[in-house]
Amino acid sequence: MANIGFIGLGIMGKPMAGHLVKAGYTLYVYDIMHESVAELKSLGAIPCRNSKEVAENSEIVILMLPDTPDVEEALFGHDGVSAGIKPGSTVIDMSSISPIATRKFAEKLAKLGAEMLDAPVSGGQLGAQNAALSIMVGGKAEIFEQIKPIFEKMGKNIVLIGGNGDGQVCKVANQIVVALTIEAISEALLLASKAGADVTKVREALLGGFAQSRILEVHGERMIKRTFQPGFKIKLHQKDLNLALQTGRDIGVSLPNTATAQELFNAVSADGGAELDHSAMVQALERLANFTIGGK
Amino acid sequence: MANIGFIGLGIMGKPMAGHLVKAGYTLYVYDIMHESVAELKSLGAIPCRNSKEVAENSEIVILMLPDTPDVEEALFGHDGVSAGIKPGSTVIDMSSISPIATRKFAEKLAKLGAEMLDAPVSGGQLGAQNAALSIMVGGKAEIFEQIKPIFEKMGKNIVLIGGNGDGQVCKVANQIVVALTIEAISEALLLASKAGADVTKVREALLGGFAQSRILEVHGERMIKRTFQPGFKIKLHQKDLNLALQTGRDIGVSLPNTATAQELFNAVSADGGAELDHSAMVQALERLANFTIGGK
Repeated sequence: MANIGFIGLGIMGKPMAGHLVKAGYTLYVYDIMHESVAELKSLGAIPCRNSKEVAENSEIVILMLPDTPDVEEALFGHDGVSAGIKPGSTVIDMSSISPIATRKFAEKLAKLGAEMLDAPVSGGQLGAQNAALSIMVGGKAEIFEQIKPIFEKMGKNIVLIGGNGDGQVCKVANQIVVALTIEAISEALLLASKAGADVTKVREALLGGFAQSRILEVHGERMIKRTFQPGFKIKLHQKDLNLALQTGRDIGVSLPNTATAQELFNAVSADGGAELDHSAMVQALERLANFTIGGK
Repeated sequence: MANIGFIGLGIMGKPMAGHLVKAGYTLYVYDIMHESVAELKSLGAIPCRNSKEVAENSEIVILMLPDTPDVEEALFGHDGVSAGIKPGSTVIDMSSISPIATRKFAEKLAKLGAEMLDAPVSGGQLGAQNAALSIMVGGKAEIFEQIKPIFEKMGKNIVLIGGNGDGQVCKVANQIVVALTIEAISEALLLASKAGADVTKVREALLGGFAQSRILEVHGERMIKRTFQPGFKIKLHQKDLNLALQTGRDIGVSLPNTATAQELFNAVSADGGAELDHSAMVQALERLANFTIGGK
């Protein structure tokens, strides 16, 4: 079994790294948070002083970090992965970051003789804990096949989308659809409720036809029952839509409703709702309508 | 069996009326199009000279007309239903029209001793032909129960949503969700495609998670395969979103993404696409991006 490095032991990374240790892999770990490192050490992982040391000891280096600049710093910054990586190694970036930056990182790593896969996930903290993440992968097919047994320790729905960056593109597309479907359900249920209809019955009727979606099932119910504990936090979805809008600007795609959805998230955040579930986007429209679903 | 009147024998009304004649009802029919009336006559329906004459001969009067002013004219205009209707009769408006106007019409009919149900449908021409329409009903529960056997000759998923107008509210909510989900899929697949990913694989990956919807299944595939024959025509969805936006203005609900979706429909129409399937909304975004899904 290959030695694995794991950089980034946050809400997502910690349980993911834990699954690998439990599966018997020798795991070298690094995070700026000492508590997280100590927790992994107690499971059997080996702490490192920096990302370079992780890379020196591992054939496979996994990153699970908040955003594009964090990944760039861990890979190419002072004492970063690139300073310690051996030719023939593979870097797997499971963070959700810019597809365009991802392609540049893969090119720079290739010059050092290292392969790269981008492998962002969906499924959140619960998916990470239960090893039930969806994993959207970009990179070479032969590298994907080599790494697949490792992905299977962390996730269930594991799909190779295409070349480097395409996993990140798929994740961005996913987050656009999720946010805009939440927005669609918000407009429809709010209009129905303020017009005097029973939204529970409207939701049921809509689930029987072309308006059906997982979001109408799950998030539509949250809007009606007013249960906005996450779930998936608005502040994380803001980051994802920022990636979408940035990618749209970079490659020249106009995303009008993504822009509006982001502004509605911003409005809920401005009112203290950044930690709420993303279905709380409806609250911004409710404020504009001076009316809450259910008539409260 | 009650005598039934049927006013409006268009693309939808003609097959719906046909099912009632075949089921053995005595059907009095009226339409301004003589060919449609003649066709129903050949099946056994009895032609009338105007809506008043339909009402004089029927205990139940069904309307299936294009828009709010058409329904108002048929009910309360010269030689309209209200001039011939008998106390104890029931008017069933199966057109998709304004929920607010619907409530006014129900009040006016109540003063003449007549009941009213609003019962807009979804499922399109094919649903009408196959007696497989979804029917969203507003009105009194006891009237709904009386009429249900008649609805069952024309549809399958038949739901009482609430009081007068609530069937129309539900239909408007349905059309908002459908249009905005088409828009969401359009933004996501276009971004993914212009970013270089294989949209077929992106769509498959998205179907496995929270981005899943009937629209992603059906209309997402149409966007990828470039099959834009209707289906449901853009010009009809424009009418429905106009109802949504008008209702939003009337009751005070801001519908920002519905407004954008309508403008995108308007752009496709301006380019000659009014008769295309509503999934062709993607063409407006494609024009803005100077790129077509699949890279053509």
